[in-house]
Amino acid sequence: MLRHLGLPHRTVEVSIFEGAGRTPEFLALNPTGKVPVLQLDDGRALAESNAILAYLADGTAYLPNDPFARAKVHQWLSFEQENVEAVIGSLRHWTMTDKLARRAPDIVEAKRAGALRTLALLDRELSLRPFIAGQAYTIADIALFAYASRAEEAGIALSPFAEFRAWVARVEAQPGFLAEVHPYSIDPHSAGELP
Amino acid sequence: MLRHLGLPHRTVEVSIFEGAGRTPEFLALNPTGKVPVLQLDDGRALAESNAILAYLADGTAYLPNDPFARAKVHQWLSFEQENVEAVIGSLRHWTMTDKLARRAPDIVEAKRAGALRTLALLDRELSLRPFIAGQAYTIADIALFAYASRAEEAGIALSPFAEFRAWVARVEAQPGFLAEVHPYSIDPHSAGELP
Repeated sequence: MLRHLGLPHRTVEVSIFEGAGRTPEFLALNPTGKVPVLQLDDGRALAESNAILAYLADGTAYLPNDPFARAKVHQWLSFEQENVEAVIGSLRHWTMTDKLARRAPDIVEAKRAGALRTLALLDRELSLRPFIAGQAYTIADIALFAYASRAEEAGIALSPFAEFRAWVARVEAQPGFLAEVHPYSIDPHSAGELP
Repeated sequence: MLRHLGLPHRTVEVSIFEGAGRTPEFLALNPTGKVPVLQLDDGRALAESNAILAYLADGTAYLPNDPFARAKVHQWLSFEQENVEAVIGSLRHWTMTDKLARRAPDIVEAKRAGALRTLALLDRELSLRPFIAGQAYTIADIALFAYASRAEEAGIALSPFAEFRAWVARVEAQPGFLAEVHPYSIDPHSAGELP
């Protein structure tokens, strides 16, 4: 979103898996100890990726002004949090940091089934309109793209989901789109872990 | 929120645990098959409780107009979805519908630990200000109240959390506050279940 809007900013990496999220200084920015956090020039801090997206997009074409259209964007942001981040995002994290084998098989299986349900739902919805919340590209697409487009890194094949894959290409073709990915540091002994 | 604003409405119960969320008619309203859904007079439908709250509160004192203050409300709505609904809400559902013993002990234990972390965090935050997103009562308080205030029905004692309990009383004292709870139908054989 910062890149789409051309807003100058500085990225500070925080080693949350090595405990850097639990310092008093970081907890003052975000009481959950998680990234990302957006800190403004005046020091105020905002946490939760979807709240940050909505804040940055407020008043731009990426978040509609019409109340119902805006609410639809928020509906899909909620969907993303429950059915993409917590499902595909978790699986991808475990897969890429060598933690998958240490997870209860029940939990892994539930997340795999959930990931397939999510992708099937998105595939069906994206056959009805070009972007998830309507005719226009919004922060709901940006939020969904992050983990859903990388489902293969979570061990989920995207080949059955043609409409979804066509949407991935539409998102990537947006002017100023940036799919920057910060790699996980591979640390199988890390004590602090994503859920 | 409908009660706070005095908006006329009609409640339609949907038996999602008996499959009524999987009909083509209901899936057209909400592709996830879940409740709640807000349907407008013109037939348009909005899903996800936090998106519904934001839509109804838009332009009222329950969702601030100031962009940063509004973003803070969205931050706490995201927190609620990840750390209250998915944790205390799940545990409460399993506890009240006799499903707890059939859940993997690892999962139940992780949710219990998560519920205690959530309540400790809220207790600390609510010692700093009267309402979760600032000086004023907002939809973030409404969203958090729903499952967090009922943690004892999920088997989590609230006695250690004095600041949190004081906030519960402040929320209940809001003009027009309605803590209506729809009971679960007790159906241990129900096939479709919340996560």
